[in-house]
Amino acid sequence: MSDINKEYLLALRSDVEQKHDEALVQRFDSMHPADIAEVFNHLNAEEVGYLFKLIDDKERAADMLVELDEDVREMLMAQLTNREIVEEVLAYIESDDAADVVGELPEARAEEVLAQLKDEDQEELINLLSFSEGTAGALMGTELVAVQVNWSVAQAVREMRSQAEEVDRVHSIYVVNDAGQLKGRLSIRKLLFAASSARTSIEDLYDSEEIRSVKTSDPSEEVVQIMKKYDLVALPVVDEHQRLLGRITIDDVVDLMEEEAEKDYQLASGLSEDVESSDSVWAQTRARLPWLLIGLGGGLAGAYIIGVFDIEHFPALALFIPLIAAMGGNVGVQSAAIVVQGLASQSIGEDNIGARLVKELSVALVNAVICAAVIMIASLALDYQVNLSLTVSLALFAVIVFAALFGTFVPLILNRFNIDPALATGPFITTANDIIGLIIYFAIGMALL
Amino acid sequence: MSDINKEYLLALRSDVEQKHDEALVQRFDSMHPADIAEVFNHLNAEEVGYLFKLIDDKERAADMLVELDEDVREMLMAQLTNREIVEEVLAYIESDDAADVVGELPEARAEEVLAQLKDEDQEELINLLSFSEGTAGALMGTELVAVQVNWSVAQAVREMRSQAEEVDRVHSIYVVNDAGQLKGRLSIRKLLFAASSARTSIEDLYDSEEIRSVKTSDPSEEVVQIMKKYDLVALPVVDEHQRLLGRITIDDVVDLMEEEAEKDYQLASGLSEDVESSDSVWAQTRARLPWLLIGLGGGLAGAYIIGVFDIEHFPALALFIPLIAAMGGNVGVQSAAIVVQGLASQSIGEDNIGARLVKELSVALVNAVICAAVIMIASLALDYQVNLSLTVSLALFAVIVFAALFGTFVPLILNRFNIDPALATGPFITTANDIIGLIIYFAIGMALL
Repeated sequence: MSDINKEYLLALRSDVEQKHDEALVQRFDSMHPADIAEVFNHLNAEEVGYLFKLIDDKERAADMLVELDEDVREMLMAQLTNREIVEEVLAYIESDDAADVVGELPEARAEEVLAQLKDEDQEELINLLSFSEGTAGALMGTELVAVQVNWSVAQAVREMRSQAEEVDRVHSIYVVNDAGQLKGRLSIRKLLFAASSARTSIEDLYDSEEIRSVKTSDPSEEVVQIMKKYDLVALPVVDEHQRLLGRITIDDVVDLMEEEAEKDYQLASGLSEDVESSDSVWAQTRARLPWLLIGLGGGLAGAYIIGVFDIEHFPALALFIPLIAAMGGNVGVQSAAIVVQGLASQSIGEDNIGARLVKELSVALVNAVICAAVIMIASLALDYQVNLSLTVSLALFAVIVFAALFGTFVPLILNRFNIDPALATGPFITTANDIIGLIIYFAIGMALL
Repeated sequence: MSDINKEYLLALRSDVEQKHDEALVQRFDSMHPADIAEVFNHLNAEEVGYLFKLIDDKERAADMLVELDEDVREMLMAQLTNREIVEEVLAYIESDDAADVVGELPEARAEEVLAQLKDEDQEELINLLSFSEGTAGALMGTELVAVQVNWSVAQAVREMRSQAEEVDRVHSIYVVNDAGQLKGRLSIRKLLFAASSARTSIEDLYDSEEIRSVKTSDPSEEVVQIMKKYDLVALPVVDEHQRLLGRITIDDVVDLMEEEAEKDYQLASGLSEDVESSDSVWAQTRARLPWLLIGLGGGLAGAYIIGVFDIEHFPALALFIPLIAAMGGNVGVQSAAIVVQGLASQSIGEDNIGARLVKELSVALVNAVICAAVIMIASLALDYQVNLSLTVSLALFAVIVFAALFGTFVPLILNRFNIDPALATGPFITTANDIIGLIIYFAIGMALL
């Protein structure tokens, strides 16, 4: 469904206005929930509310709601009664999605909804909601298939049949002991081929090699690293006593990876919030203005510095201000980006920071020598004064080395204080290096001219 | 294994030097292939070659090889004989990985290796190697479990048993007709619970609802979109006659997503190649220097413009050069980043480009008005001349609007010509906007001063 164009939406809206309910029911009848969500994301609150009730299959409707953009889902949830949320949404979706949906509600509303749940569902959801964002607990769902190590295959298949009714997609069959502690995984393949011989026990069949799991409090970055590294489609979550509590599925991790990548990209590009081209003018302004104001502050500082150094008497120095400012910014951003990626992939750690800094300094020196030589030759060839050329060349050398070190240190320091190092990329580094570059340039210029 | 530190590597190296083979065999004996690969990525060619032969379990060794960084794998492959590559590597890994490994070999070597394969393996691999990079065909592996629609469950289980021997992990059971055309999927759950009643046929059991598939020539971006959108862990690949050829698994798509995100981030940060802080000084210089040289060119162009506009007579204009240059760059990068993300997520398409441009212009105008007002007030408050303040304020307004439009158009145009729009972010936009910003600023300055 990448063909949601103007015509499609016009036709849909005209059906809504004229209340062609039958045509609308049919339209959504054979569509995948993710496709319906894509259509709904283009509509306004009233249309979304009206059409939601027309989706015949309640499970499909609930799955669709999970796939909606967050702002559209909020619009829709605001139009549902507590009872509808409980019976037509939460009843059909997985526990991790249910926790997300309830977590998005205004607090008072969330409590009302929780109060209407059956005791055991309520307890489960409150438990899931208690995990802080950014931990494995907040990513986990409780739907899983688990068998006990001392069961026979026949018993396991019987038990699994009832468990599997609640589980949409069986990623793995986990094996636990009497105390509920995770012992291993049972290959579906093995179970399938053993199913005929009813006397085999799970003990003989399951894979007891070290099974990878995370604790509820483990950071989500670790979940991503583990699932990526070991190519897992599901990762079990245990409590501090190794008891199996739930599992995290790869689709949630894929979404998380994408969000993280977008956030880093946005920070590097000077956007302070997650923003899309379809967002309102106000939302876009809010995401862009903070960095622009920082840039303005930097520009005013630059004007002050140039004034202090008495540009009126050395107007020729003005010629290369843009070059110095731009190069400081460019080098700083490159260095910071390499550090940010290294921290994210854990290839930079406590033990090798020293070696990394030495290497960064070497790279900076090589780049600085090459750039300084190029600008010296170019500047003389273009008939600028020798002293001016020398000033620019020396200043450029110093600025490149300084900017590289600054671009390397700032994200490392932020990371040490548990601040997202990606904050250091983009406009922050550019602005800081602009100012420092100017000071270096004018100081050298004053000395030489 | 995130604890590969200096001590670990020192101990390992001393074992290698003293040929403590037994200790080394044991060390790798219980490790996951991905963990062994992580260790190997820290070692040199000789060590890697020596240790590879010490991994007892050949399947584990081959799986490890697939997980290595590309440059380390190349070092290792260069030390293996053709026969070893065929019998100890290709024999154990999945077809998509085998195609990647052979595709990385020098051409002559690849042909020698292919020549030593059994006819059917050879044909399969040549076929996989024929798909161009960036298509679904290049991502697909041929290991899958497929049953015919007219088989009985008992027959299906029998056939699956022999198929499954070749398949490491059964993601899905595909259902095909006599002609090999993909008809649907068989839920493992349903099969498991039907396995006892041997007379049921697959026809009665399988899910014939539209099954999603891609063709070998479909672009990999589409594969990523589909698997993300529909939360799939495997996606079947068919030929133009809908015949099932293979499947793409989520772990390969996760790797692809990560590479793409890194590439965009690097382009936005002015890095022209995939580079890590552990890469050699030369590799890092090669990745950074191109954009720095472009920046130098931009700086020289800026010097030329400032000279043309006769800065010597209006030295006060120099004060705000850094501000104008920085703001043009910042705004341009923000706009370009939003477009690049919109194109990637397909939220910007043919039908709404007009609407997006109008919105971008509105955002730019709002930002421009706010920034121009801020700078006017700040500049007057700081006692700069009224005419200078007015010049800066007007120029800033014009630069912001222009940079936003430029930052929006360039990625759109690149995309139209099938060039990666992310190329337009980072130093390119910054440099271009620097120059244009200066021209606007000086033109207004000359008129007002």
